[in-house]
Amino acid sequence: MFITFEGIDGSGKSTQARMLAERLPDAVLTREPGGSPGAEEIRQLLLTGDPDRWSAETEILLFTAARRDHLEKTIRPALEAGRTVICDRFADSTRIYQGATRGDLRATVDRLHDLMIGREPDLTFVIDMDPSVALERGLARGSGEDRFEDFGLGFQETLRHGFLQLAHDHADRCVVIEGNRAPEAVAAEVAAQLAAREVA
Amino acid sequence: MFITFEGIDGSGKSTQARMLAERLPDAVLTREPGGSPGAEEIRQLLLTGDPDRWSAETEILLFTAARRDHLEKTIRPALEAGRTVICDRFADSTRIYQGATRGDLRATVDRLHDLMIGREPDLTFVIDMDPSVALERGLARGSGEDRFEDFGLGFQETLRHGFLQLAHDHADRCVVIEGNRAPEAVAAEVAAQLAAREVA
Repeated sequence: MFITFEGIDGSGKSTQARMLAERLPDAVLTREPGGSPGAEEIRQLLLTGDPDRWSAETEILLFTAARRDHLEKTIRPALEAGRTVICDRFADSTRIYQGATRGDLRATVDRLHDLMIGREPDLTFVIDMDPSVALERGLARGSGEDRFEDFGLGFQETLRHGFLQLAHDHADRCVVIEGNRAPEAVAAEVAAQLAAREVA
Repeated sequence: MFITFEGIDGSGKSTQARMLAERLPDAVLTREPGGSPGAEEIRQLLLTGDPDRWSAETEILLFTAARRDHLEKTIRPALEAGRTVICDRFADSTRIYQGATRGDLRATVDRLHDLMIGREPDLTFVIDMDPSVALERGLARGSGEDRFEDFGLGFQETLRHGFLQLAHDHADRCVVIEGNRAPEAVAAEVAAQLAAREVA
């Protein structure tokens, strides 16, 4: 099973991805951009240096190149070995972040995904969070690498709306989880949703 | 006018691109992969390190990302300023090199080009050369960077055939020039073909 966690920066999705991986003995925990040696090289181009040196179109191509490598080298081999793959961000992040920056690019992202990636997650947890709380958490992390933290509250609100709309449009694979609670409470709901899906 | 030079390694196309640029006072001479600061960063990923770390699909995405940046930052601004752009390799090289390696990818390269690049050259000179001669010239260059020199004679013959077929399929913009002559003789024919096109 291929499970992804999505949401705005600081929503707690990385914590939730890790907590779920700890519950599942055979799970492979990975993240984007990156997740394979080649994709990590491309990640360096995307997340270090002046972010404005890439247009949105070039950025989408680089994200897709990294995703293709990640899919080939990490995700597919793990799924074929019968393991659960838990990924912190995947194609939905490109749809929402680039789509939020440039609305006209959403269709391009989808066409590029269909052409070069194809695979969608079996289950996507969208961790929803009040953006003012998420922004504080994101800034507090201080990784120094995540340029998306720099865009401010209005941008985060646009992203939140984008993720909720995407979850609505892809209700077959997306579950929205309220993130503004103790991590253990969020994790319990993630586990319950997963159990319900597996029984169904 | 946007003019490209294509051909196998060692065909003399880089020399011809430079000689034409010297004849045209306002020309911008550029090359792929690379040709803009961002695209040169992507070139480093493609041409240094173990080339086998990328699948053909990931490679195509990286070439297209570099091409998009090159088009936005170097080619289009020069054309809009009324200058002639002379480019050593462009999308045809991706079509032929990746198409030669993996025949099933040719259609993918074309669809990706239509989606993310769009622009074709106004005039493409395909410098044709006996591959055994070209291979010697290519190896003699010893740049240490061009991995395509390592594939051997059979591969170069496949590439030559691919470029000739492409020139035939796109006869509206492609001119085949016999390259196995003194550079000055090749340059004279390039100039004559260009003059004929400009008068027409």
